[in-house]
Amino acid sequence: MEPAVVVYEVGPRDGLQNEPEAIATAAKVELVDRLARSGLRRIEITSFVSPHWIPQLADADQVAGQVARYDGVRYSALVPNLKGYERLRAAGLGVAALFVSASETHNRKNVNCTVAESLERFRPVAERAGEEGVLLRAYVSTVCGCPYEGAVAVGKVAKLAADLLALAVDEVSLGDTIGVGHPSQVRELVRTVSNAVPLPKLALHLHDTYGRALANLQAGYEAGVRTFDASLGGLGGCPYAPGASGNVATEDVVDLLESEGVATGVDLGALVDTTAWLEEKVLKRRLPGRVLRARLGLRGRACEGAA
Amino acid sequence: MEPAVVVYEVGPRDGLQNEPEAIATAAKVELVDRLARSGLRRIEITSFVSPHWIPQLADADQVAGQVARYDGVRYSALVPNLKGYERLRAAGLGVAALFVSASETHNRKNVNCTVAESLERFRPVAERAGEEGVLLRAYVSTVCGCPYEGAVAVGKVAKLAADLLALAVDEVSLGDTIGVGHPSQVRELVRTVSNAVPLPKLALHLHDTYGRALANLQAGYEAGVRTFDASLGGLGGCPYAPGASGNVATEDVVDLLESEGVATGVDLGALVDTTAWLEEKVLKRRLPGRVLRARLGLRGRACEGAA
Repeated sequence: MEPAVVVYEVGPRDGLQNEPEAIATAAKVELVDRLARSGLRRIEITSFVSPHWIPQLADADQVAGQVARYDGVRYSALVPNLKGYERLRAAGLGVAALFVSASETHNRKNVNCTVAESLERFRPVAERAGEEGVLLRAYVSTVCGCPYEGAVAVGKVAKLAADLLALAVDEVSLGDTIGVGHPSQVRELVRTVSNAVPLPKLALHLHDTYGRALANLQAGYEAGVRTFDASLGGLGGCPYAPGASGNVATEDVVDLLESEGVATGVDLGALVDTTAWLEEKVLKRRLPGRVLRARLGLRGRACEGAA
Repeated sequence: MEPAVVVYEVGPRDGLQNEPEAIATAAKVELVDRLARSGLRRIEITSFVSPHWIPQLADADQVAGQVARYDGVRYSALVPNLKGYERLRAAGLGVAALFVSASETHNRKNVNCTVAESLERFRPVAERAGEEGVLLRAYVSTVCGCPYEGAVAVGKVAKLAADLLALAVDEVSLGDTIGVGHPSQVRELVRTVSNAVPLPKLALHLHDTYGRALANLQAGYEAGVRTFDASLGGLGGCPYAPGASGNVATEDVVDLLESEGVATGVDLGALVDTTAWLEEKVLKRRLPGRVLRARLGLRGRACEGAA
């Protein structure tokens, strides 16, 4: 069955960037390969930022260079600026991801400039991407609330999304960075932002910090969103609460959507195998995803070698 | 603000019955006391079954006898038969809970009789309860699927709910025992069952095995259900998948509902304190609830003394 939604896998970038221990480049390359073979068609594989800021992804060029390419799979990476974009191009990737926060304070803490300055930094990247046929994805974070400012006005998110669209980005991913969103809020957010950015260009990037990611995803789906970011096993914790969940788990997203009769194109069994491999052979610890835990429990093995 | 929903705490019964280690009676009594003081108004405190079946709750008479009573709080316990009912009365409780499965195979494995035989066992309990002014709650399990039979027809659930109503039960709690339900299914379930049992007499008892408990709760709320079972911290694992989640966490339910503007009457901070106390002082391990973990993380302590 032709997939009716896009499940956008961000674990290799958004998850691994938070890992305390260095992960071998070969393991990252194998991870991306396994994810593609489980049916995921959009995978964010690394970040071309300075190793000074994110040492965990210092091997971005190697990872991007070595990952096997499959037909129909698009590999993206985060680029903070033109220099990052050039590294992405040198590695032969065709999708560049930008990031900006809907909250001024969060943007300043994250990238040390104002939102307007972030947009100005994007401009030369967007121009080059347009000339070179590179797709652009823009992450907007803190759309449901900011850890510093609290509530974030939905109109502010819509305005920023419109500004990004004016830069000719191909997709805007709305991120509930701290997981405080709730269903009626997500419904209202999608309704308002889709006045500025057409629904097919919108994605939701939900965090499960308070257990509401799937309730919010369901609300977003019912409001017309068809692209959902997720991270295998829920890799990538909440930076503000040690031990708490961050990214919604890809397995949980796939299983919810398939239960609802929405084809994802993902082979859940193969994905669970991949995440179990990552837990046992690479991370040596358990990830928070629910479906992963339930499936491995039903197979009679909780997670060998993990706590 | 007057609560707009009932959050029905089942942890001391449904959670503790699955604990591998014996819990001291005094700790159980303190737990129930703390739960009541956090604002929960319905608490299921134990089960009057044979200690041969559930040794963890062998001190049911002592627990029920010692728990402090607060005005406006109703304490219930599970009773499998008239003998259990008599123990409940001797301990001075005013709410008796019955349990039956919507799946014949699950009912047989659970209580070793047919569904019809379960209903016959309930009859003398229901008669006595009617005479003595004791409220009756009936749990119907496997309403969204059975671990042995797979799919469970919604009509079968509605028929059983109607049979229970004919026995004059005051409330029917629909249990997604293995957590396989999904939002559109829960919506359809509530719509169909509410033709047989009025919405104010319906409760949802959701498990988070696949991470969908809150998405299902939201669907149930939107369909008109106003009573939701939950267990502090998500206490009570999934019996079919070691390491996997069972009961939805009370903190997660309260936080979702309050986010949506639905008053629960529960003091979330006090509840988190109680669950943190249970983890650290009694269980010596972490529970799976998301809000608990996030709140404790934000307080800067993950869980002292726990893994």
